[in-house]
Amino acid sequence: MGSTFGHLFRITTFGESHGGGVGVVIDGCPPKLAITTEEIQLELDRRRPGQSKITTPRKEEDTCEILSGFHEGQTTGTPIAILVRNKDQRSQDYGDMAVKYRPSHADATYDAKYGIRSVAGGGRSSARETIGRVAAGAIARKILSEAGVEIVAYVKRIKDLDSTVDQTTVTMEMVDRNIVRCPDETAAEQMIALIESARDEGDSLGGVLECVVRGCPVGLGEPVFDKLEADLAKAVMSLPATKGFEIGSGFLGTTMKGSEHNDAFYMEGDRIRTVTNNSGGIQGGISNGEYITLRVAFKPTATIRKEQQTVSNAGDDTTLSAKGRHDPCVLPRAVPMVEAMVALVLCDHLLRQRAQCG
Amino acid sequence: MGSTFGHLFRITTFGESHGGGVGVVIDGCPPKLAITTEEIQLELDRRRPGQSKITTPRKEEDTCEILSGFHEGQTTGTPIAILVRNKDQRSQDYGDMAVKYRPSHADATYDAKYGIRSVAGGGRSSARETIGRVAAGAIARKILSEAGVEIVAYVKRIKDLDSTVDQTTVTMEMVDRNIVRCPDETAAEQMIALIESARDEGDSLGGVLECVVRGCPVGLGEPVFDKLEADLAKAVMSLPATKGFEIGSGFLGTTMKGSEHNDAFYMEGDRIRTVTNNSGGIQGGISNGEYITLRVAFKPTATIRKEQQTVSNAGDDTTLSAKGRHDPCVLPRAVPMVEAMVALVLCDHLLRQRAQCG
Amino acid sequence: MGSTFGHLFRITTFGESHGGGVGVVIDGCPPKLAITTEEIQLELDRRRPGQSKITTPRKEEDTCEILSGFHEGQTTGTPIAILVRNKDQRSQDYGDMAVKYRPSHADATYDAKYGIRSVAGGGRSSARETIGRVAAGAIARKILSEAGVEIVAYVKRIKDLDSTVDQTTVTMEMVDRNIVRCPDETAAEQMIALIESARDEGDSLGGVLECVVRGCPVGLGEPVFDKLEADLAKAVMSLPATKGFEIGSGFLGTTMKGSEHNDAFYMEGDRIRTVTNNSGGIQGGISNGEYITLRVAFKPTATIRKEQQTVSNAGDDTTLSAKGRHDPCVLPRAVPMVEAMVALVLCDHLLRQRAQCG
Amino acid sequence: MGSTFGHLFRITTFGESHGGGVGVVIDGCPPKLAITTEEIQLELDRRRPGQSKITTPRKEEDTCEILSGFHEGQTTGTPIAILVRNKDQRSQDYGDMAVKYRPSHADATYDAKYGIRSVAGGGRSSARETIGRVAAGAIARKILSEAGVEIVAYVKRIKDLDSTVDQTTVTMEMVDRNIVRCPDETAAEQMIALIESARDEGDSLGGVLECVVRGCPVGLGEPVFDKLEADLAKAVMSLPATKGFEIGSGFLGTTMKGSEHNDAFYMEGDRIRTVTNNSGGIQGGISNGEYITLRVAFKPTATIRKEQQTVSNAGDDTTLSAKGRHDPCVLPRAVPMVEAMVALVLCDHLLRQRAQCG
Repeated sequence: MGSTFGHLFRITTFGESHGGGVGVVIDGCPPKLAITTEEIQLELDRRRPGQSKITTPRKEEDTCEILSGFHEGQTTGTPIAILVRNKDQRSQDYGDMAVKYRPSHADATYDAKYGIRSVAGGGRSSARETIGRVAAGAIARKILSEAGVEIVAYVKRIKDLDSTVDQTTVTMEMVDRNIVRCPDETAAEQMIALIESARDEGDSLGGVLECVVRGCPVGLGEPVFDKLEADLAKAVMSLPATKGFEIGSGFLGTTMKGSEHNDAFYMEGDRIRTVTNNSGGIQGGISNGEYITLRVAFKPTATIRKEQQTVSNAGDDTTLSAKGRHDPCVLPRAVPMVEAMVALVLCDHLLRQRAQCG
Repeated sequence: MGSTFGHLFRITTFGESHGGGVGVVIDGCPPKLAITTEEIQLELDRRRPGQSKITTPRKEEDTCEILSGFHEGQTTGTPIAILVRNKDQRSQDYGDMAVKYRPSHADATYDAKYGIRSVAGGGRSSARETIGRVAAGAIARKILSEAGVEIVAYVKRIKDLDSTVDQTTVTMEMVDRNIVRCPDETAAEQMIALIESARDEGDSLGGVLECVVRGCPVGLGEPVFDKLEADLAKAVMSLPATKGFEIGSGFLGTTMKGSEHNDAFYMEGDRIRTVTNNSGGIQGGISNGEYITLRVAFKPTATIRKEQQTVSNAGDDTTLSAKGRHDPCVLPRAVPMVEAMVALVLCDHLLRQRAQCG
Repeated sequence: MGSTFGHLFRITTFGESHGGGVGVVIDGCPPKLAITTEEIQLELDRRRPGQSKITTPRKEEDTCEILSGFHEGQTTGTPIAILVRNKDQRSQDYGDMAVKYRPSHADATYDAKYGIRSVAGGGRSSARETIGRVAAGAIARKILSEAGVEIVAYVKRIKDLDSTVDQTTVTMEMVDRNIVRCPDETAAEQMIALIESARDEGDSLGGVLECVVRGCPVGLGEPVFDKLEADLAKAVMSLPATKGFEIGSGFLGTTMKGSEHNDAFYMEGDRIRTVTNNSGGIQGGISNGEYITLRVAFKPTATIRKEQQTVSNAGDDTTLSAKGRHDPCVLPRAVPMVEAMVALVLCDHLLRQRAQCG
Repeated sequence: MGSTFGHLFRITTFGESHGGGVGVVIDGCPPKLAITTEEIQLELDRRRPGQSKITTPRKEEDTCEILSGFHEGQTTGTPIAILVRNKDQRSQDYGDMAVKYRPSHADATYDAKYGIRSVAGGGRSSARETIGRVAAGAIARKILSEAGVEIVAYVKRIKDLDSTVDQTTVTMEMVDRNIVRCPDETAAEQMIALIESARDEGDSLGGVLECVVRGCPVGLGEPVFDKLEADLAKAVMSLPATKGFEIGSGFLGTTMKGSEHNDAFYMEGDRIRTVTNNSGGIQGGISNGEYITLRVAFKPTATIRKEQQTVSNAGDDTTLSAKGRHDPCVLPRAVPMVEAMVALVLCDHLLRQRAQCG
């Protein structure tokens, strides 16, 4: 009972990697928003497998169908249901994995929790589930865009290969210019080579994704539990393969003294600004109008070709070399997922703020 | 509208640093749980200001009164309301801070969001609000304890002063043995000296807190949004002064290859175990029975005596040297807060799992 | 933002009368429940238009497709999505109603609220939306059935034509024996004639539906707001065309004295029973193990052929003779809807009770 | 886990008839609302026992204390906690009722559900719990009042003694002019005599309460589950002793033909009006700007002095003559309760509509 997210702009996702399809129902979307299927499809294409040589070679077109909630190109304020059919299902690839648990994957815990699971392709724990999030995020992003909010995520680090990105100027176009989605072109090339090398070894890599939000209105966030950073943390930590979250200065900020870390205020016209932005655009759980900056740690993909020690669902020790076509590194495709989750949180809080404070 | 937390074991906190008091209403607590006021008070005393030379010298006794939900020492299943009266209020200390915004504090954003705030003592953004969480956490902890779950948090690092702690043996008694709440006694002494030094300079320090959960049942966590790590992330990131969250290997895990990071499975009798625990006890959003391990980054306290550049609520550039009695480092008192939030999440998920999967 | 219902057994419906389809996502269903598409389809067929001469002659097959949440005939504990495609759409029938508001229908208020609406066929306010409820209700009913709970609703009164029904023996088979779904065969014949007569006049009729729940466990209901009768009231009052709700003695009970109305207790073995059942199986918001009995008032169908005074969406006074194929009386088709809503409430509370009280 | 109500304007009540006190936490209240303790106390005084010869002679002053959420007479947007201490507790009066279940009261079902209960005074099922609702309702009413919404409830019928009330002109002053709170003075006198007679016999009476809302904005209500009448039904059916709910024409409307029941539209300037108001101000679950009218059935008080057949908590058949001081008829004191619940629903929907539709 955890497939619903958001308080006012509320989404419910459904679907497994195999079966009739995956999708989302979005409830609470403001009426009269103009958005096309193409705009939603654009984000799904950024998430899609098989888009480059460093993602899984699975061919999934992920064409979305809008089932409800629209009238002549505009939202009607009623639930928007979006469905993406499942295709290209080679469930035979999963034969071995039906009985042997992939280490660090969800196979064993799903079986332990529910006593049953959709075996093929990871079932509900498949990254395919994020299709619904990305589709809903496209709508949230459109609403935010009309409010002047811009969200850009990108790959900041692969393994220990870091990059340099200017948060004030980076755009989605710059991010999408290369297949690893790191706007530092020099670093990007190295990252791609590193990922290819891991893939060829039957191994996988992790890294850090960064996201910057520009133009966020002052006042979003609902203390004390639904603080903006708390909801952002939950949102991205609900994505597959995430291991950590930072807002603003993050863990590095813990090594500073208060006098260094505090963001001094100054007036810019009649607007309150801060000299530095260690706060990451959020103070006391509420956006302050500066850039919101956050980072997310993604572990190396769990499913790898290399042989690993594991157990079977019958309780026997064994080994597994995972078949199937898996991403050697999830980060390039995680970029639209993180943007979607951030958009969903901000859109929800935009409506919440409008409700309470007018 | 963000002062409620939890789906089945649900708490609502209220209160500001000044005014009638702070407290909590706990709804959904199982009936017939035996817990005494003393057990709750014990946790509040660990959170209390003025408990040592490295915490704020404010004297707040924080004596709790249970208003409802009990009959002859047992919970009745109806809402438990707990009230702690406010005392020792020197609101004159806040004179300057009523008009000048403390850098990196919530003063400015509360004014921006609501157009009004309880000026004295930080109002709702005061750490006093966490009293309600800690009181509720004591009850959640008792329920978990009866299910064999043990939660121990401790200070892992102050600024760049790290410590060594054995997660398998550390106990609350060991943690509480020194005033900085770091079970590594050698590191603890240095940490205390470091904090005292910062305090004497009118400055403040941050650090990293670690928490280990032993004995968590397999199967807790509700994919896809209410994954256990997602709810834990939200829970601790809703605490004041938090900047980051890690589960298991965290950010460090992003530098490993999949073949290194994956936790190999093996059978221990009829129980599935993992050789390593980079997963931090959670796989696919569901607890796997291994230790749950998480880390939280706390920034240096925002309110410091040192003079800082800021602005007034009238929109003028100015400077501020914060008066009042503030913690030079929040981490020692944050230990029971983090334990409380972790307990609240686990208790909620224990009930959720019981509901759906019996 | 009101298309989600239930706290643990939670459904979200979507879809309009025209467009891609209607359906439901069910989150929180216990795993390993065996239920077939046929069992769900059976309830949809009872709800379906065109099933008899006294319902709308629209032919809607309403064949459901289960998209997710199942593995080899059993629920997996993950969201169950069910889709019914829209067919037989004669949107030309609605030409006149696109600009003229049907009196006592939702056309005008949807336009006023959202500033836009799906014009064809009533859009979201169409009774087609209840398909999702009925499909979800079939699953809830199966869960309840395994817990020994039986739900039977039937038409009690059409206009002022009342019937006599024995609540202890009435079954779904007896209810479905005639097309008006009133188990009193003599009354049923008269009711059918009355409805046909109204239909031929281009008019419509209302009436009262009664529902009895046998075998409900003691202890369901969550005071003080989620009392069982409160959630039942909300559930059925959210169905189209409802005007009133009664539990047990209902409005008639207000004319009795306390000494007459109170249900005297007696012991039947070790079980507490009541001599009478004016409480309708619920006391203090909690089920007491006696039959739960409730009644729902349905108004006469708003859409009628007879000419009526109305206004256009341009703000002009005008008249309207509704075209299209509408039910002269909603009650026969409302029987499975009421059963579904009652099942959804009871199933949700069954899980809630299990969560809190074990 | 059912003591929270509302989605955006959200209240959580706590407390039993005996113990530390009863109260409420209101989360999501818009900031900068000016309301005094006196305005809240006024409503509590209308609810208070001992206010007249036809209510219980228990003396409960029910003085409220606002613990939080205010700054200089205005709401701050943070949780408002209100506490009313328990006094005048004669728990010895309940000696007999501690072991014998009162027929049609919540004693037995609370024991069955929770396995424990606060025995004295009805515990959580006591009407004292409604203090929190009424206090919160006073704040909701103030918000609505500033939006031009006026809510007036009154006693419409006692047993079979009906009254005549003009919904367009009735005011709270007219309602409070007599102790039975029926604005028809002639009927009121007879009602009072009837209640006194029942009281003298050790018996009790029920009746019907009516409520009219004038000035409700168009557009409130959230189909398909949170329709305005559905949320109103739940709200009032969660009050103690309620047995039925009607909106607009209610059960009587089921005896009309569609052509009689439909509310014809006409233009009044640029505003759409209806000639009749069988819809009770709500169409398709959304307010249409006409008066909202609803009726609530209250059963005769369960606790009576007359001897009744019952059982003990040890499982023995016995008899009970209830001691203590109980209302012979709950309706006069239920007037502010119903107004409060209606205000809470409307206020919540006002914020919800503002959030989604601006």
